[in-house]
Amino acid sequence: MVAIAVRMCEWLRSPVRGVLLDITGVMYESGPDMGTVIPGSVQAVARLREAGIPFRLVTNETTTPTSILLEKLRGFGFDIKEGELFSPIPAALRLLKKENLVPHLLVHPRVEGEFSVGGGPASCVLLGDAEDNFTYANLNAAFRALMAMPKPRLISLGYGRYYKHNDQLQLDVGAFAKALEFACNVQCEIVGKPSPVFFQQALADMEVTAAEAVMVGDDIASDVGGAQGCGVRGVLVKTGKFTPSLLPHPTVTPDCVAENLADAVERILAEGVKD
Amino acid sequence: MVAIAVRMCEWLRSPVRGVLLDITGVMYESGPDMGTVIPGSVQAVARLREAGIPFRLVTNETTTPTSILLEKLRGFGFDIKEGELFSPIPAALRLLKKENLVPHLLVHPRVEGEFSVGGGPASCVLLGDAEDNFTYANLNAAFRALMAMPKPRLISLGYGRYYKHNDQLQLDVGAFAKALEFACNVQCEIVGKPSPVFFQQALADMEVTAAEAVMVGDDIASDVGGAQGCGVRGVLVKTGKFTPSLLPHPTVTPDCVAENLADAVERILAEGVKD
Repeated sequence: MVAIAVRMCEWLRSPVRGVLLDITGVMYESGPDMGTVIPGSVQAVARLREAGIPFRLVTNETTTPTSILLEKLRGFGFDIKEGELFSPIPAALRLLKKENLVPHLLVHPRVEGEFSVGGGPASCVLLGDAEDNFTYANLNAAFRALMAMPKPRLISLGYGRYYKHNDQLQLDVGAFAKALEFACNVQCEIVGKPSPVFFQQALADMEVTAAEAVMVGDDIASDVGGAQGCGVRGVLVKTGKFTPSLLPHPTVTPDCVAENLADAVERILAEGVKD
Repeated sequence: MVAIAVRMCEWLRSPVRGVLLDITGVMYESGPDMGTVIPGSVQAVARLREAGIPFRLVTNETTTPTSILLEKLRGFGFDIKEGELFSPIPAALRLLKKENLVPHLLVHPRVEGEFSVGGGPASCVLLGDAEDNFTYANLNAAFRALMAMPKPRLISLGYGRYYKHNDQLQLDVGAFAKALEFACNVQCEIVGKPSPVFFQQALADMEVTAAEAVMVGDDIASDVGGAQGCGVRGVLVKTGKFTPSLLPHPTVTPDCVAENLADAVERILAEGVKD
């Protein structure tokens, strides 16, 4: 029993100085209207704040503008500051501006207004979780825009396989990125998880190294695998899209599997925070 | 110049005893209503018949029942017998029957009636070129059907990247197969081109070997590459979805590039038919 206890805490042997949190499926379950907060999550985030452990929310949520998402989280009772939310939308906006790109948009109608589209022919296709906007006509329009580019450039806001919404699994943006990659024989650039750049921006903002951080998420590939890919420990929670059949996973072994965010934070604070 | 002429005919050094023809983009261009016949194609097919060279039409067309397709070709003036048309739909029906599979269908509304769906839960997802039926809701339904199977089984009627319709390129079934493969972490079974089984069934029906046959198509991967993959020479025509930017292709080098079907048949009959 002692051996097991030691093994259980091994991943916390080096101190935790910053935490990265996925939002959907970790802080709340998406569902009709607003979705529902996952019990204990609001208190868990408050405990991190009280313990002085910096945290950042790293989400691939692109069906809602970040301002609305922030409002929603605060409505649930989460105490989150604006700068603590990292989403692919502002990251993509920075990329478009920096490289002076004109995007052809295939995104959710709610976030179309976030992207100021310049004039001239499109120089990239920007793909988000468009949900019902993923029609054959819209996918063809994106496909043709790529084929018309001298050098097709596909930028995907995340690369997830699927997620849970209204108690059902549904296809995520990664499946549609894959379809366009195949049709146009290109490889997309990912803005968001599991892109290392995205994780590193959040780490840099907390002023902690990858080895000092822990990521908590419900997506074994994008959250846990993505974090581990850049040296961050990955905790998988059994909420959101988690199903027991996910484990063991062919390529990703979480550093820890926790019941939920409250359990994950409990473990981190009890064992992982050392001077 | 002599050296070039010799090289040009090298692919015809071994005799041609059977010809495989793609339909759309080779015999006719698809378009509004019926599409338009490609000039010289009707005569080219007639010349093969007159020369006693057996041929089979190997199509991945799954938006139309084969009976309607045959009628359409005859309406254009092509002299085609029923047994000369090889399409993924009857091939898939044989597979479903042989393995006693209950399909969840994501196909074109026009061909839904071709598949008699048995009772009980779906044991495979059958994917065809569904065109506007490729909605987010329908893709999610197929995705969930796969996720509900103890061993997800995805059968795709072809695996093309794109094709030309109404003078525009549009996404083919392969892009959507790829999306579901990615989301469910499965590999699809292909019924149709470029599956070697499909080519071999047509060859066997003509009683010719792969080395004795030539495939004429406008899809460099599915037609030319697929045929070459099972030892059949592949001729690429510059009609249909052909664009000059396709060449050189990273993985496929056609045995011959012809202007159109008439040109391809001209070359085969002039140089390739020997005793």
